[in-house]
Amino acid sequence: MLTACRAQPARRSAGVRRHGAMVNRITNAFTVDYGYPVVFTHDVFDPGNPVLSDICRGVGYSRGATPCLVLVDAGLAAAVPGLTDRIAAYGAAHADVLDLRRAPVCVTGGEAAKEGWAVPDQTLRLATAAGLCRHSIILAVGGGAMLDAVGLGAALFHRGARLVRLPTTVLAQNDSGVGVKNGINLDGIKNLAGTFAPPAAVVNDLLALRTLSDRDWIAGCAEAFKVAAIADAGFLAWLDDHAEALRQRDQEAMEALVQRCAALHVAHIGGNGDAFEAGSARPLDFGHWAGHRLEAMTGFRLRHGEAVAIGMALDLVYAWRHGLIPADAGRRVIAALRRCGLPVWHDQLERRAADGLPAVLAGLDEFQRHLGGVLHVTFPSPLGQRRELTAIDREAMSAAIAELRALQAAGSTEGRPPCH
Amino acid sequence: MLTACRAQPARRSAGVRRHGAMVNRITNAFTVDYGYPVVFTHDVFDPGNPVLSDICRGVGYSRGATPCLVLVDAGLAAAVPGLTDRIAAYGAAHADVLDLRRAPVCVTGGEAAKEGWAVPDQTLRLATAAGLCRHSIILAVGGGAMLDAVGLGAALFHRGARLVRLPTTVLAQNDSGVGVKNGINLDGIKNLAGTFAPPAAVVNDLLALRTLSDRDWIAGCAEAFKVAAIADAGFLAWLDDHAEALRQRDQEAMEALVQRCAALHVAHIGGNGDAFEAGSARPLDFGHWAGHRLEAMTGFRLRHGEAVAIGMALDLVYAWRHGLIPADAGRRVIAALRRCGLPVWHDQLERRAADGLPAVLAGLDEFQRHLGGVLHVTFPSPLGQRRELTAIDREAMSAAIAELRALQAAGSTEGRPPCH
Repeated sequence: MLTACRAQPARRSAGVRRHGAMVNRITNAFTVDYGYPVVFTHDVFDPGNPVLSDICRGVGYSRGATPCLVLVDAGLAAAVPGLTDRIAAYGAAHADVLDLRRAPVCVTGGEAAKEGWAVPDQTLRLATAAGLCRHSIILAVGGGAMLDAVGLGAALFHRGARLVRLPTTVLAQNDSGVGVKNGINLDGIKNLAGTFAPPAAVVNDLLALRTLSDRDWIAGCAEAFKVAAIADAGFLAWLDDHAEALRQRDQEAMEALVQRCAALHVAHIGGNGDAFEAGSARPLDFGHWAGHRLEAMTGFRLRHGEAVAIGMALDLVYAWRHGLIPADAGRRVIAALRRCGLPVWHDQLERRAADGLPAVLAGLDEFQRHLGGVLHVTFPSPLGQRRELTAIDREAMSAAIAELRALQAAGSTEGRPPCH
Repeated sequence: MLTACRAQPARRSAGVRRHGAMVNRITNAFTVDYGYPVVFTHDVFDPGNPVLSDICRGVGYSRGATPCLVLVDAGLAAAVPGLTDRIAAYGAAHADVLDLRRAPVCVTGGEAAKEGWAVPDQTLRLATAAGLCRHSIILAVGGGAMLDAVGLGAALFHRGARLVRLPTTVLAQNDSGVGVKNGINLDGIKNLAGTFAPPAAVVNDLLALRTLSDRDWIAGCAEAFKVAAIADAGFLAWLDDHAEALRQRDQEAMEALVQRCAALHVAHIGGNGDAFEAGSARPLDFGHWAGHRLEAMTGFRLRHGEAVAIGMALDLVYAWRHGLIPADAGRRVIAALRRCGLPVWHDQLERRAADGLPAVLAGLDEFQRHLGGVLHVTFPSPLGQRRELTAIDREAMSAAIAELRALQAAGSTEGRPPCH
């Protein structure tokens, strides 16, 4: 069967003598389909609750129990005594599906989880020691920062184990934990190292939100205002209606918020045609250019959600000063943020850089540098829809800061934003 | 515009009172399109050669020169004096397209590049120091191992900078360098950490192959035999015809081999419907279960290609003993491997494990563990087409080793496989 035959003689002879030019060109083009469920339940580790077990059956081995490593946010474990034992008991009750290779392991939670390689490295080592393969499950239980760091380790393990996220904070359940990113901070640069890696599944235990501090409960609402302002006017109205209830820890209102907000984020990721952000747009980042900068300027004493609330308030003022939204509608959103307990001002907004302009404006440069030198900033216009601006007038933004300052001073009794 | 309105009242009220059950389920489903060119040229850094510049214009900024960091395999730089100066001169000649942020940096090459986090870490730090963004270009020039390690760093940088690979070895140009994987070894486990991350482009300089040692030149041919045996009978016949020419460093024959082999790999990745290997099949891994194991058993004194050649020879014997291919055709492929200068035997094949069976059979367990406990081994059947076996008879494989030993002894003057 082996007969004389030339491989691609045309291509080869065409090129081999033409130095300094293209000899041949192939294109590797293909499509990858992604899909994962985001489910909501109550009391996920009640041994009688089949939700997590059913999800794991769907994403794990086709035959037999799937090897599984459980990692738990140490902050959560401290707040919920007995949690790791409960998880182990859940695994034992569902041993036909889950092969828990060892007792759940607590790993660093909070922003510290994202500082450097420690948590991803730990994830890789624990997964190796537990004998996991690429089709095994890494179950990560905790807040957004911990999920980011463990998620990076899981994404790297043999080029991607099956990550099942159990977000336990408002912010993680309604935003970061349902998305496709992970990352860690290196050398003071946020998310310098990370990947786009969709999880195998996300299971949100709505009762877990009860364990949160008031501050984290409230801060998590900011992303709901954000996505509502640029994508869902009806939801924005609902938030306006329920701002006080949310602040007063109305569980039913929060459960509605989390589910609606998660659905909007998921719809955006799946529906925008650029899930892995190959382009320059950052269409979900309303309020974030200033928010990110304020987080850094305050040494991360501001929670992400708090900083985003302030960033949104600023951009709302800018928006009405430029005719993108009516001023009264914009003021009403700022008032709703305050009634929800979110801050809409920080004195760092008035800090000046060497050029005399507000130092926070450096956040615009960071946004621009991040994505190929083309600025894209998302604004509501009108409220409930979004519009991308590719230029921001810095003097005008400075004036918007002054107007927000005046608004804050005038309305200081209207809401009681926490002072940090 | 803010009126009373309930967010998803149906969903919420349906679920909120049913503890221990699923409250709500969303699915995030989306598709990501990938595509990158793989081009072949001669003397890529000749300032008059527009190929690399054209490619970078296509993948970089839409306006202006794209910031670029160039990393060069230290082994290559040592073998090609003046290489980094030539690259810098190329950048200067194409400054309208490429903004080389600093002189090219040499990084560890060879398998040492993949040992631990040093090279990916270095890539992250250099990219940060050079002020790159996610849309900037990281140009990696070198062998497959170096491209794997730098590629991991590039994939992690802000969740993925634009990697342009310039593979300089046969193996990298015809196989690993044109594909979608990267990875490093940790704790002695090959590719324990890595990602699936398609490059932005691949530029193969066919003249770079002249810098290779005879051993690397020949070892790189193994993957061509592999892909021909399972996917292209005509190419296999061509290899049979050109085995001696390849061994004697016929440049024209090698250029044909590299291009045909790269095209087959690319066609496979793009055409198999599972580019990122979510399933259990490893359809390009003919000869690799034993090959990977032999690499480890010889302390990586065998090159990857050499180990794969031996693994293929063994699986060919197994294949004809089980009626998957005719024995004479299989023997002819083994003879062609030898005429090409590739080894088809290593004494480690006769090392026994505690159970009395050949120790190399542990490679089957590793394959099985790697992918969810389901064994998938690719064989040719008939030659030029592939068939997946999900069970291997270990006694029969042991007998195949004995037959290969006899064949090797009988035909030891027929070829002159290098002894390592």
